[in-house]
Amino acid sequence: MTIKRRDFLKKAGAGTGLAALGACGGGEGTAEAVDGEVSGPRVEWRLATSYPPSVDILYGATDRLAEHVSAATGGNFTIRVYAPGEIVGALQVMDSVMQGTTQCGFSPGYYYRGKHPALAFDTTVPFGFDPRQQVSWLTRGGGLDLINSIYADFGIISFPMGNTAGQMGGWFREPVGGLSDLAGLRMRIPGIGGEIMSRLGVTVQVLGAPEIYPALERGAIDATEWVGPHDDEKLGFHQIAKHYYYPGWWEPGSTASLMISREAWDELPTAYQEIIKTTCGDILSWTLAGYDEANPAALQRLTRDEGVMLHEFSSEIMEAAWRESNAYLEEQAAADPVFRTVFESFSAFRNQAFPYSAGNEGAYARFTFPKIEVG
Amino acid sequence: MTIKRRDFLKKAGAGTGLAALGACGGGEGTAEAVDGEVSGPRVEWRLATSYPPSVDILYGATDRLAEHVSAATGGNFTIRVYAPGEIVGALQVMDSVMQGTTQCGFSPGYYYRGKHPALAFDTTVPFGFDPRQQVSWLTRGGGLDLINSIYADFGIISFPMGNTAGQMGGWFREPVGGLSDLAGLRMRIPGIGGEIMSRLGVTVQVLGAPEIYPALERGAIDATEWVGPHDDEKLGFHQIAKHYYYPGWWEPGSTASLMISREAWDELPTAYQEIIKTTCGDILSWTLAGYDEANPAALQRLTRDEGVMLHEFSSEIMEAAWRESNAYLEEQAAADPVFRTVFESFSAFRNQAFPYSAGNEGAYARFTFPKIEVG
Repeated sequence: MTIKRRDFLKKAGAGTGLAALGACGGGEGTAEAVDGEVSGPRVEWRLATSYPPSVDILYGATDRLAEHVSAATGGNFTIRVYAPGEIVGALQVMDSVMQGTTQCGFSPGYYYRGKHPALAFDTTVPFGFDPRQQVSWLTRGGGLDLINSIYADFGIISFPMGNTAGQMGGWFREPVGGLSDLAGLRMRIPGIGGEIMSRLGVTVQVLGAPEIYPALERGAIDATEWVGPHDDEKLGFHQIAKHYYYPGWWEPGSTASLMISREAWDELPTAYQEIIKTTCGDILSWTLAGYDEANPAALQRLTRDEGVMLHEFSSEIMEAAWRESNAYLEEQAAADPVFRTVFESFSAFRNQAFPYSAGNEGAYARFTFPKIEVG
Repeated sequence: MTIKRRDFLKKAGAGTGLAALGACGGGEGTAEAVDGEVSGPRVEWRLATSYPPSVDILYGATDRLAEHVSAATGGNFTIRVYAPGEIVGALQVMDSVMQGTTQCGFSPGYYYRGKHPALAFDTTVPFGFDPRQQVSWLTRGGGLDLINSIYADFGIISFPMGNTAGQMGGWFREPVGGLSDLAGLRMRIPGIGGEIMSRLGVTVQVLGAPEIYPALERGAIDATEWVGPHDDEKLGFHQIAKHYYYPGWWEPGSTASLMISREAWDELPTAYQEIIKTTCGDILSWTLAGYDEANPAALQRLTRDEGVMLHEFSSEIMEAAWRESNAYLEEQAAADPVFRTVFESFSAFRNQAFPYSAGNEGAYARFTFPKIEVG
């Protein structure tokens, strides 16, 4: 059976050739069922991702999507992944899908707050959901329907496909104790996190990934945040800024989405739609599991071998951040009715989920996890 | 396009008819591609589940599996779900797959500790992983490969497909403070949790789901555990035992598996194997998200409307349980080399994961979740 399958794959490869790449929707042709294998229309999609190969777990998400979709369709539905800069830049992925340059893209919704501020909820908001709560709100609490009603205005349907785990608070050249230490501190922190930090007195800077290390090295910034131990380690911030803070209260459960052109989506056979949906769900779990596996080992290397000093943000900073974050979300909700609708759904879910998490599983975590010290 | 798809489905239904149900592996026939839809060999599987429809989230997992697999294969791969008692009992699902009575089954591995004690790690062990850690260990930390090397001896390959979230500690007629209150207490608690409780002085009873409520009502038992608020509420224990304890330290991240006959698996086209695998991953995330959504609301109803009193187990009980649980796992590892191999993998992962979880995300949880009180 195995040998026959290989024969089939060879035949398929040497067969009708690659269908023409449509600007949107891809080409179609129908392959015959051979030797008991599956067949279906030929579809070729292009995918633009915001993540370079060095962000290996999230880049791996799109590789895995392409691989699984191809395998599940007998090689008939192929997705070619383009890294940032190959077709569009990391921040233009949604535009690429809107314009039909690619049929789909992988990117966090909060990059596109300029198109609609409530797209922040697709990814994470300060003092928002942890990864499980975020997934639960999106898939079981009505969140994704609300988010997709916003994407619909841009001709897009989206599914969550990646999660970074709770992020870290970032790298500081000098320790920060109370709020007075934040006053005038030059920190690279984009997005809503930057808005809140600005209200706490920080001089906020927005820099792309390649610019951060040089800025830190020459003293143009005093601090930066990125993702978490696994991704941060590769960028080498620890070589300059030795103080690593947690928690990253502005990104407690960051989720990235597969954004799909609605037109391309509607042209898919229902079977292919189904395969995309379940593969997104599988990869959502798989990326989170990947960070949960990689982060502890990376943090251990950083603290044990690289002299990194771990700190928890002081309660003075946390309390001020909590107040300003909620104030910010309330202001946005007052200013925009769609934002308010999403915020109300978020708040209702949070009012249930937070006290529950503080109870049963919180008690387990508080008792059990500190029982084992860092090796 | 939609209408044509419906035509296709009608034609397929009226077509070659249902293939004969093989004892193992199912029947095969090849459907033609119609109207650009997918086609592939006809496969019909039977699935025995340990969960009755009343355990709706986990029963829903198998319904969803059947639905998605059918949709992803153009209706060519069908899975029929049998509730406990329809073919085999809830505790005979693995046997059903081993014997080829059904091609697959949905059940927690720890039901089958009698076949091999290390199958406990497929589900959960006392003071083991929380749900994210369990998924990460299985899928990224090598756990599933070890577990499948055990299942292989029984002609089975398995994939995790359900998670109940961290379970609760159960229902007690009277409050339990310290260890002295456990002495002689008659509690329904099966599995390793029961072994540990027995070491703590409890008189352990093992009862099936339908027997628990009557036993509690007539005073034959003083306490019982089940799953968590969403599932417990339906069984009505709160009508008799008003004291609800947490955390359920013996089942912190219970995971149920799709167990598949290796023979049936090997007969599948690779595309169908791929569809099964990604659908399991999707449902694993979806069941956890379901419990995370349903548990908080159920607990709110129980405490607000039903007079249930929530308690955290005392540190005296928790400390004793921690000691006895680790001693138990060490004893099992000393007695069985395969158990030892799995335990060493579990321990290595736990030594990294626990301190990490206590840090960054632990700090976020400790600060943020108690900010909102139960409504």
